[in-house]
Amino acid sequence: MSSLQFTTESSSDGVRERDFTVGDVPGVLWSPASGPALAPLVLLGHGGGRHKKHGEMAGRAQLLVNGGGFHVAAIDAPGHGDRPRTAFDERASAELAAARAAGEPVGPIVQRHNAHVAQLVLPEWRAVLDALQQLPEIGTDGPVGYLGVRMGTAIGVPLVAAEPRITAAVFGLHWPDDLAEHAKRITVPVEFDLQWDDEHIPREAGLALFDAFASKEKTLHANAGRQGELPRFEVESAVRFFARHLGRTAAPQV
Amino acid sequence: MSSLQFTTESSSDGVRERDFTVGDVPGVLWSPASGPALAPLVLLGHGGGRHKKHGEMAGRAQLLVNGGGFHVAAIDAPGHGDRPRTAFDERASAELAAARAAGEPVGPIVQRHNAHVAQLVLPEWRAVLDALQQLPEIGTDGPVGYLGVRMGTAIGVPLVAAEPRITAAVFGLHWPDDLAEHAKRITVPVEFDLQWDDEHIPREAGLALFDAFASKEKTLHANAGRQGELPRFEVESAVRFFARHLGRTAAPQV
Repeated sequence: MSSLQFTTESSSDGVRERDFTVGDVPGVLWSPASGPALAPLVLLGHGGGRHKKHGEMAGRAQLLVNGGGFHVAAIDAPGHGDRPRTAFDERASAELAAARAAGEPVGPIVQRHNAHVAQLVLPEWRAVLDALQQLPEIGTDGPVGYLGVRMGTAIGVPLVAAEPRITAAVFGLHWPDDLAEHAKRITVPVEFDLQWDDEHIPREAGLALFDAFASKEKTLHANAGRQGELPRFEVESAVRFFARHLGRTAAPQV
Repeated sequence: MSSLQFTTESSSDGVRERDFTVGDVPGVLWSPASGPALAPLVLLGHGGGRHKKHGEMAGRAQLLVNGGGFHVAAIDAPGHGDRPRTAFDERASAELAAARAAGEPVGPIVQRHNAHVAQLVLPEWRAVLDALQQLPEIGTDGPVGYLGVRMGTAIGVPLVAAEPRITAAVFGLHWPDDLAEHAKRITVPVEFDLQWDDEHIPREAGLALFDAFASKEKTLHANAGRQGELPRFEVESAVRFFARHLGRTAAPQV
C-alpha cells in the first residue's frame, strides 16, 4: 500500500490546501485552517477534461470546508490535470471536436470516455482513501462522502457501489447506460442534480439514473436550464446534505 | 372592499399570532414578535380538509417567521376550518371514503373537489391580500410569496397566474389536469415538491405539472417516499427560496 506524501502547502480564506501524491496519483487535500482537527471527509470527483483544482473544484471545496467544516480531497483522474495524457484521451478529444463540428450528439463519445476513465481510477481512489484515513485528522472511523457530477458521477457511482466506507453521495448530470446497474446496489443517501433543459442528456435518461438508486433516502434537484447552468445554490445544498448525513463539526454557514 | 379586523392575539416562541376576518373569511397572520416591522409577506395555502391552523400550517409558519423574518398569512378555504361545511364538501368526503373503501383511485374526486374550492377562494384570497397590504407592517409595495402543496397548489397555481403581486411560489403534490394551463402563464421563480413514490399522483403527472411552468427559474425537488413523507427539510428549503427571491429581513436560520 502506497502512503501519502505531502508536497506543497498553502492557506487562504480559512482553507488549508495541501498537495499530495499516493504512488503516481497526484491529489489535493483542502482542510479547515483552524477548528477541530478531526472532521468528516468528502471526496470530490472532477468532470471530464478538468483538473483537480479547476475553479469549479476549488469553489466547491471552499464551500465544503468553510460551510461544513469538512476535509475535502480530489485527485487527477488518469489522463487529466497533472497526469500525462494518453492516446485514449487524445482520441476522445478529437472525436468530441469532430462530433461538435458536425452537430452530432456527443453523448456516446462522452459515455465511452467516462466509463474507461472510471475503470482506471477506481482502484486509485480506494488506495487514496486508504492513505487519507491514515492521517490522524481523518482517521479510519470517520464518515466519508462523495461529490461529483458529469464524469465525477461516472466515477462516483461505481466507487460508492463498491466502497462501504462512503455513506452519502451527491451525483448528477449523467446518462444511466453504464451506471444504472451500479446505482441499483447503492443504498446510502443520495442527492442527484439534473438540468431540466440539458442539451446533451435527455430528461428521461437523467430521471432513469435517479430512479435506479436503491437508496431509501434520495432527493432529485432538477433546475430549469442547460447543462452548464447548474445553479451555485446546489453546491450549498450539497454542503447541507453532507452536514445532515456525515455529521457536522460546525453549524453550516450556507 | 372589506377591511381587515383583528380578533384575537397571542405570542409564543418568537411568533406573534393574530386571528383576523376580512368580510366572512377567517384568517390568521403570523409575524415576528420582534425585529423590523416591515417585512415580506408569504401566503400559505392549506391542504384539502385541513384547518388554516393545522399543525403542519403552524409549523411552516413558524419556520418562515423565525427562519426568514416574514409575515405569513393563511385563510380557511370555503367549507374548511372555521367555515360552514357545504353540501359539496359533504358529498366529496363521502365519495372519498367510498373510493378508499373500494380501493379505487381517489385522484379524480380530489381533483374535482380542489378545482371547485380554488374557484371559490380565488377572489377571497385577492381581497385578503388587498386588506393585508393596508397594514403598515406589510404595505402595498412589499414583496409577496405563496406556499401551498396538495389543495394549496390547486388554489395557488391559478392565484399566482392571476395575481402580479405574487413574485415567488412553492408548489407541489398535485396533478396537472386542471392546472397546467394556468402554470403556463406563471413566469415567477417556482420551487416544486414531488414525492417519487406518490401512491396517488403518477410520477409522470407530477413531472408534467413542473414542466408546464413558464418560469425561467424553477427547481424540482423530488424525494423518495410516499405522498405523506414529504421531508421537513423541504420547508426549510422553501424558507431559503423565499429569502433569495423576496429579500430577507434577517439571515435565514435554517
